[in-house]
Amino acid sequence: MNLDELLAAVEPVHRPSADAARQRHSRLAKPPGSLGRLEELAAQLAAITRDCPPPVPERPVVIVAAGDHGVHGQGISDWPQSVTAAMVATVASGRAAVNAIARTVGAEVVVVDVGTRSDDVPAGVVDARVAGDHGHGTADITIGPAMTPQRCLAAIAAGARAAVSAVDAGGADLLAAGDLGLGNTTASACLVAVMSGRGAHEVTGPGANVDDTKLAHKITVVEAALARHGDDSEPFAVLASLGGLEHAALVGMLLAGASRRVPIVLDGVVSVAAALVASAMAPNLVGHLVAGHRSPEPAVRFALEQLGLTPVLDLGMRLGEGTGAVLAVPIVQAAARVLAETARIDDVVS
Amino acid sequence: MNLDELLAAVEPVHRPSADAARQRHSRLAKPPGSLGRLEELAAQLAAITRDCPPPVPERPVVIVAAGDHGVHGQGISDWPQSVTAAMVATVASGRAAVNAIARTVGAEVVVVDVGTRSDDVPAGVVDARVAGDHGHGTADITIGPAMTPQRCLAAIAAGARAAVSAVDAGGADLLAAGDLGLGNTTASACLVAVMSGRGAHEVTGPGANVDDTKLAHKITVVEAALARHGDDSEPFAVLASLGGLEHAALVGMLLAGASRRVPIVLDGVVSVAAALVASAMAPNLVGHLVAGHRSPEPAVRFALEQLGLTPVLDLGMRLGEGTGAVLAVPIVQAAARVLAETARIDDVVS
Repeated sequence: MNLDELLAAVEPVHRPSADAARQRHSRLAKPPGSLGRLEELAAQLAAITRDCPPPVPERPVVIVAAGDHGVHGQGISDWPQSVTAAMVATVASGRAAVNAIARTVGAEVVVVDVGTRSDDVPAGVVDARVAGDHGHGTADITIGPAMTPQRCLAAIAAGARAAVSAVDAGGADLLAAGDLGLGNTTASACLVAVMSGRGAHEVTGPGANVDDTKLAHKITVVEAALARHGDDSEPFAVLASLGGLEHAALVGMLLAGASRRVPIVLDGVVSVAAALVASAMAPNLVGHLVAGHRSPEPAVRFALEQLGLTPVLDLGMRLGEGTGAVLAVPIVQAAARVLAETARIDDVVS
Repeated sequence: MNLDELLAAVEPVHRPSADAARQRHSRLAKPPGSLGRLEELAAQLAAITRDCPPPVPERPVVIVAAGDHGVHGQGISDWPQSVTAAMVATVASGRAAVNAIARTVGAEVVVVDVGTRSDDVPAGVVDARVAGDHGHGTADITIGPAMTPQRCLAAIAAGARAAVSAVDAGGADLLAAGDLGLGNTTASACLVAVMSGRGAHEVTGPGANVDDTKLAHKITVVEAALARHGDDSEPFAVLASLGGLEHAALVGMLLAGASRRVPIVLDGVVSVAAALVASAMAPNLVGHLVAGHRSPEPAVRFALEQLGLTPVLDLGMRLGEGTGAVLAVPIVQAAARVLAETARIDDVVS
């Protein structure tokens, strides 16, 4: 898959359909505006799908992109790197938190390994590791670029293929973004720092599992990576230099999903960082995105401000895996269903 | 149903089960605390059901209590009073917003008419209007008490019967609180003012459908009702003096639901006001309650502070009908499912 073609395939969302949705909402049997965010979501779904009322998403799929990070060697996590592969296996066997949430909302879980440091990929996991390059993950971003341009392109293509397969073959009509990878909040902080012009101390947070003393060290690691990277803010260059393979896969997934006119729900700092990079490549992307949950990671605030997105949920979750994105799915579905199925005020009050 | 018996049947939630749930959560395959509010909800469900892990709520039922208000004659709404009965019919026919949301999350909708000003009750609506008293609603609370103690008791009993029927006969394992009634945000403001010691200007909001000039008038109406009522803060007296029949029904529904050890999700200002009154009658109630959605009505903040509840959702909704409560149901379900179905960390990382 050619990146330029992928970027060109992301068209603007359709404002007239959003306007039609707002018009339709204003005539339903309820005070105008009284469903708040649900009304905005319905208009966005109409704009994405070019249809009013927009179809109710019935086949949500969460794509969990997994990769390992050379920067883990700098001691930025309390857990050993082997936890990434262990959690890939756990999600694949349906026994992770994201699986329980996905079963609650009727979502399918697809795991794509784009670069874990493991010899084998468990059954049920899409093996999208770059040929000849198994078992390595990214390089240490404090020392050199995370990946070569070729590896970055391959990971983008892997994420795009996962999205296209879910939509075209699987009938997915809503995608959610998930991630697995020890160290990926460090890479996310770096991506957001460069793309939003912020410093390491502003964007770096505790991630899922770091205490205050480790946080100070994590900030110095982010500072070192940013200093090594320099000033280049061209999004592909930033992604290859500082991102994870799962960030690159999510960039591809977001772009391909948007090219298929499917709404895409973001999760925490990893998918939000990927969205910031991808929307710098293809500004039309952002209209297709819903921020599912407000991660407490500080980078998220800067990234969402720049993207102009407000999260649907704010439940203090910081796990990743796509948990916050999947939990927001019923609210997106309800937004579509209310617009489609509520009576008109003129048919109720004569 | 005797009120004293109903109050005595609300037992404290079971702290050891909540502690067991927190223990279990700390051993799951994820960083401790990383699921935020979902972990607190799981502990609460364990405490309510006295079971760890708590069963996943599979049969949610929203009970929509409907009534009319004499104070509507003071011009506190933009809509005619007949809209209450029209919306009762709309919910009963499955064409209101709450029905669309309930279909999204798999919830059943039960409508209980405890006092609309209509001659007939549509098919599918529980007719719980007080015998000999059809078609009247409450009296104007600026002039006299909303209802006699007998009517108030009858409405409480009607709500309690609806909850008991849903749980014992229908198998409901989660209840959500809904309401319909033009003028009921005015009565809610009065209830919260007395029960929280606040003034009319602090608790009165625009409700679903009032502009700024009407809001000033609405505040004077609340002031007049509060002045007429006086200082009595005994909860049953306050309810009969200032509440709506649907508030009384929700008080009964909350108490009966809690007596059955079922989690109950609140919606906006009407159910929150009812919860404030009911928890003053039976302090053990509050452990059974989940605030589903943060209504922008100002009274809600004071009531939730006093109850010690933090809403799950904050989506700017102000419709009522139980919409915000039903929308929070999948999050409560996910909280239970994650605790029950996620692998233990020791089984994942060796």
